[in-house]
Amino acid sequence: MVTAPPLEEARDLHPRAARSLFRQGLTVPTTGWCAGYAQANLMIVPKDIAFDFLLFAQRNPKPCPILGVLDAGETSGPLLAGGDIRTDLPAYTVYERGKLVDTVTDLTPYWRDDLVTFILGCSFTFEAPLMEAGIRIPHIDQGTNVSMYRTSIRCETAGRISGPLVVSMRPIAADRVSDAVRITSRYPAVHGAPVHVGEPAMIGITDLARPDFGSPVNIPDGSIPVFWACGVTPQAAVMESAPDLAFGHGPGYMLITDAKDSDYLIP
Amino acid sequence: MVTAPPLEEARDLHPRAARSLFRQGLTVPTTGWCAGYAQANLMIVPKDIAFDFLLFAQRNPKPCPILGVLDAGETSGPLLAGGDIRTDLPAYTVYERGKLVDTVTDLTPYWRDDLVTFILGCSFTFEAPLMEAGIRIPHIDQGTNVSMYRTSIRCETAGRISGPLVVSMRPIAADRVSDAVRITSRYPAVHGAPVHVGEPAMIGITDLARPDFGSPVNIPDGSIPVFWACGVTPQAAVMESAPDLAFGHGPGYMLITDAKDSDYLIP
Repeated sequence: MVTAPPLEEARDLHPRAARSLFRQGLTVPTTGWCAGYAQANLMIVPKDIAFDFLLFAQRNPKPCPILGVLDAGETSGPLLAGGDIRTDLPAYTVYERGKLVDTVTDLTPYWRDDLVTFILGCSFTFEAPLMEAGIRIPHIDQGTNVSMYRTSIRCETAGRISGPLVVSMRPIAADRVSDAVRITSRYPAVHGAPVHVGEPAMIGITDLARPDFGSPVNIPDGSIPVFWACGVTPQAAVMESAPDLAFGHGPGYMLITDAKDSDYLIP
Repeated sequence: MVTAPPLEEARDLHPRAARSLFRQGLTVPTTGWCAGYAQANLMIVPKDIAFDFLLFAQRNPKPCPILGVLDAGETSGPLLAGGDIRTDLPAYTVYERGKLVDTVTDLTPYWRDDLVTFILGCSFTFEAPLMEAGIRIPHIDQGTNVSMYRTSIRCETAGRISGPLVVSMRPIAADRVSDAVRITSRYPAVHGAPVHVGEPAMIGITDLARPDFGSPVNIPDGSIPVFWACGVTPQAAVMESAPDLAFGHGPGYMLITDAKDSDYLIP
């Protein structure tokens, strides 16, 4: 039985040590773990739709920024040196024909040699520089998950893969919105600049208090809702496009990679 | 018979008008045409290796920055509205099993429904802001093509596609090298920041005066050779990997797209 380290210890772990704990069965959200290292979204699909999915990501780089791709059947790579993509996340989602049929901690029983793994950037990377700049992030202050919404914006379709843009929302103090745009624009590999500022109804969000994924967040007075493209978009595309089989990460239960957040800073 | 407009007129043409001239058979290099619009490298491969090629580009984004992909058989798209990718470049290269077998002005006779078109960023886009910042670009001053070299740096392999990194070299005044890095780093979709500054032997270049592609350039006193990843890299990969069939643009005879150079400025 593996027990979770206190968050102040988890914060200082090397990603290799964190992945080892998850491999041994620990199942906790990864927010706050391995400070300075990039966490990532996961999408695994059979080879026969891998081109369509890769093209979907290329055509929709804000929600689907690819950090790495493992070849068909490969279970490790430079983003997780010595690791195993089937066991090293704390939780995985399993989709069959677009339906979420299970959440598991080990993909080994499902593994096939034709599975292609996509590792996608995560907004955790830009939250650190926002906070370093003194910008408050209410869901972190409030200890909840970020609010995520399906929008009325359609992603560009690629072959058999289509779906809506999913966004995450952070209320930002009105006098810091410009700084938040400027700072996150420097991280194009982890969703980059916001896709929308201030008018949720214009992108099909009718009630901020009822997110489609994650938790509701109290919006402090004087704050503006700011929307970033979200790494849940690929899972929404799987739900709509219904490939025979697909696997994702459990939302909030991310892959902790060996890449540094700072590797993705431009310029 | 279509004659070339004087360069001062070509400079002010809309890309649609330029593509129309090329479609009618005009064959001239496109440098200096359609100021402010992004020019692009081309690579067309059969569907059966399109995933490998897309993955090669994803794994090597500095030499192979993808601006757009047309679906198998598609001959037009938003980057060339109303155009035809088979006729709208002034020149094309034809590769069979890795050998350059022909240079043509019209791909229509070769067209097949399984051909997938990749449109890749070109460094012409960042040369304009370099010059606006007062940085001299010797090959432009000297009226020659840029010098390009195969390096000893290997691209990351993807499936059946492998090859060396090809770089372009611009001698930059030593007191402006820092500015040149800073400015080009803001254009990651068109090769971005340099891959190397100052020591050609370290990347396998033995003689700057003998480029592998393009023309030799006189290096002004007080200048440092600065190397950027180059869009000829995909053609070098085709030469090494020898797929049955592939098409590129004639070097210097680019696709002129409807995208603005400024669309690719980050942040």
